[in-house]
Amino acid sequence: MLDFLQVVKREPKPRQTGYSHVLDKGLGIRQVQDLLETAGEFIDIIKLGWGTGYVTNNLADKVAVYQKAGIPVCFGGTLLELAIAQGKFDDYRRTVKRLNLSHVEFSTGVLDMEIEKKAEFIRQLAEDFIVLAEVGSKDENVAVEPFRWVEEIKILLQAGAWKVIAEARESGTVGLYHQTGEVRLGLIEEIISAIDPEYLIFEAPQKRQQVWFLKQFGPSVNLGNIATDDVIPLETLRLGLRGDTMPDFQLKVWKPRSIIKDMSGNR
Amino acid sequence: MLDFLQVVKREPKPRQTGYSHVLDKGLGIRQVQDLLETAGEFIDIIKLGWGTGYVTNNLADKVAVYQKAGIPVCFGGTLLELAIAQGKFDDYRRTVKRLNLSHVEFSTGVLDMEIEKKAEFIRQLAEDFIVLAEVGSKDENVAVEPFRWVEEIKILLQAGAWKVIAEARESGTVGLYHQTGEVRLGLIEEIISAIDPEYLIFEAPQKRQQVWFLKQFGPSVNLGNIATDDVIPLETLRLGLRGDTMPDFQLKVWKPRSIIKDMSGNR
Amino acid sequence: MLDFLQVVKREPKPRQTGYSHVLDKGLGIRQVQDLLETAGEFIDIIKLGWGTGYVTNNLADKVAVYQKAGIPVCFGGTLLELAIAQGKFDDYRRTVKRLNLSHVEFSTGVLDMEIEKKAEFIRQLAEDFIVLAEVGSKDENVAVEPFRWVEEIKILLQAGAWKVIAEARESGTVGLYHQTGEVRLGLIEEIISAIDPEYLIFEAPQKRQQVWFLKQFGPSVNLGNIATDDVIPLETLRLGLRGDTMPDFQLKVWKPRSIIKDMSGNR
Repeated sequence: MLDFLQVVKREPKPRQTGYSHVLDKGLGIRQVQDLLETAGEFIDIIKLGWGTGYVTNNLADKVAVYQKAGIPVCFGGTLLELAIAQGKFDDYRRTVKRLNLSHVEFSTGVLDMEIEKKAEFIRQLAEDFIVLAEVGSKDENVAVEPFRWVEEIKILLQAGAWKVIAEARESGTVGLYHQTGEVRLGLIEEIISAIDPEYLIFEAPQKRQQVWFLKQFGPSVNLGNIATDDVIPLETLRLGLRGDTMPDFQLKVWKPRSIIKDMSGNR
Repeated sequence: MLDFLQVVKREPKPRQTGYSHVLDKGLGIRQVQDLLETAGEFIDIIKLGWGTGYVTNNLADKVAVYQKAGIPVCFGGTLLELAIAQGKFDDYRRTVKRLNLSHVEFSTGVLDMEIEKKAEFIRQLAEDFIVLAEVGSKDENVAVEPFRWVEEIKILLQAGAWKVIAEARESGTVGLYHQTGEVRLGLIEEIISAIDPEYLIFEAPQKRQQVWFLKQFGPSVNLGNIATDDVIPLETLRLGLRGDTMPDFQLKVWKPRSIIKDMSGNR
Repeated sequence: MLDFLQVVKREPKPRQTGYSHVLDKGLGIRQVQDLLETAGEFIDIIKLGWGTGYVTNNLADKVAVYQKAGIPVCFGGTLLELAIAQGKFDDYRRTVKRLNLSHVEFSTGVLDMEIEKKAEFIRQLAEDFIVLAEVGSKDENVAVEPFRWVEEIKILLQAGAWKVIAEARESGTVGLYHQTGEVRLGLIEEIISAIDPEYLIFEAPQKRQQVWFLKQFGPSVNLGNIATDDVIPLETLRLGLRGDTMPDFQLKVWKPRSIIKDMSGNR
């Protein structure tokens, strides 16, 4: 990295904030090597989206390349949901251990499940793994009320989730967003009035969504479902090296906007 | 591939159904190697889209990499249309033979041609090659009536086409689809009331289009113009390893929907 | 490249027209090698978009791969804007020289600057480098009047810019275009009535925008912000090897359309 400019200072890895959670939906090994050589230090975790890891022919070799570079890998939550639906929870855990994966994602994007049962799964998983728990439905017709998001996030964190991911899918058109990709303002306002953003990862696959969260919460907001092609572009947004955030992070001192009313919320 | 789950069983290659026809619009050799190592078994044929094969500098080497992995390669139909327009049909055939390509695509997306002449070209090509014939215009202002699609598909199959591809372009906004990308329901209903889908490849470049066809016709529908980045994602859709099709293919037994009225059609 | 067809003849590199200005927003070295092997002859210059070059870990090695293939590389204009804003203009120049870059891009997409000051920067840069100057704001809410574009382009060329790039961003939704991606017809009409298109590079990241400019100005129009995946597709459009331009460049002799009223303009 060049160094003749003064840019936003990033927390070093492993970090609690400024976390970039990246979606790999089928890269080959040479592409992974390319990604790691150019941008490895900007990737905090790789998610093998939904069930893509299951069908990747050279999975073990590919995972090893990420691990050698010190980057944790986890399966998408959908794979675990299916394992649960088929009564294969133990096989799933064994597979994850065999691949030496340190993280798991637990979601209920497809399966219906009582909140107590979700908490119980997270408690079990947290004995062996770092758990990323996801909230929000993958169904664009399901718009969960904000207070239920808050309630669920608190319970999942208390059950042992390391952080909670707020759903948006690869498309960025459900969960946190309207079908147009616009942010659901009221929802986010309610969430962050109760939960410190440090415990949250906001899925933000579209550039305008990344820009929105960065302008709102600053360069160190945790963002998820970042496409592999967007790892370097996102880093430039975080550092104010792109037109969209340069005025905010370089030409003046960034300040939180009005949406943030009370970030002292308990967990 | 992992194997701790029960997933949809796929016909082995070479297969008549569950065919994934993939669009390469300019990959380099390392990208091809990556694709084959991770997902080679999910690719039934590679199309070098429109005239991209003509300008690819290292074409012969690239084709050889696909062929060594047992994957047939063919030029896009536009290249043959141009050869015909320039009176270079024989040069085209010689080039295809020199590259050891087993398949050709015959289309009339740009050229106007009488149906008898189309059939005559297919008869000639079928002597040497496996012929994929394409129906539908590339022009978004041309919406051919459903009964003409049916008539033409029947004639092209009778002339010796192995399967017929229903046009959508790389964008998925013409032919089978409205300009918005929505499926032209009436058109598809009329086609499959007369033609067994086994003889058809539906171009479906957009994910929502793939999901629509899979939910309608099941995991083994033949799909075309799949982007190379979408080979693994499509396979997860076929197997019910993604939220969009998991409820249909994993959580209950899939059944054809009402659109399919009569699939006993003759050819 | 195959050669059995008669296709549009391209000016050899280094060329003044038919220039393809390509946007690299973070490729790795293997991806660069793939791109060069398949399509190197169709790339006239590589722009490391906005500040992406600044954060690319293996920047020097990557630049060397392009340079070895004879392809000039330059930083995006945003990086220079930031250097200017931080009083690091000399450090920027030193870095560019150390990397042996022959070209620089000068823009004011974010910074406000008097036209005289812009001209002064270009005069200074032109002493050491080939200068691509960009006009147009990156802000979608700023629609500069056409006569100001013309005025500014003339001044920048007189100050020593080799060519002027007309802004559209990576998205193709500002500058030359409406927010929908549609061409701002009146703007382009006014520009090309005063400036010979040979001195202009039109940013046209979307395919429909490329097609529009090619149909309007012919196969040798200079186009910019071409995605690396679109280098081969663009070349097929230039040569009439894709349905969109085949009727114009292959099936009849291309003629400029009515928008072009007077291309004799002085500079």
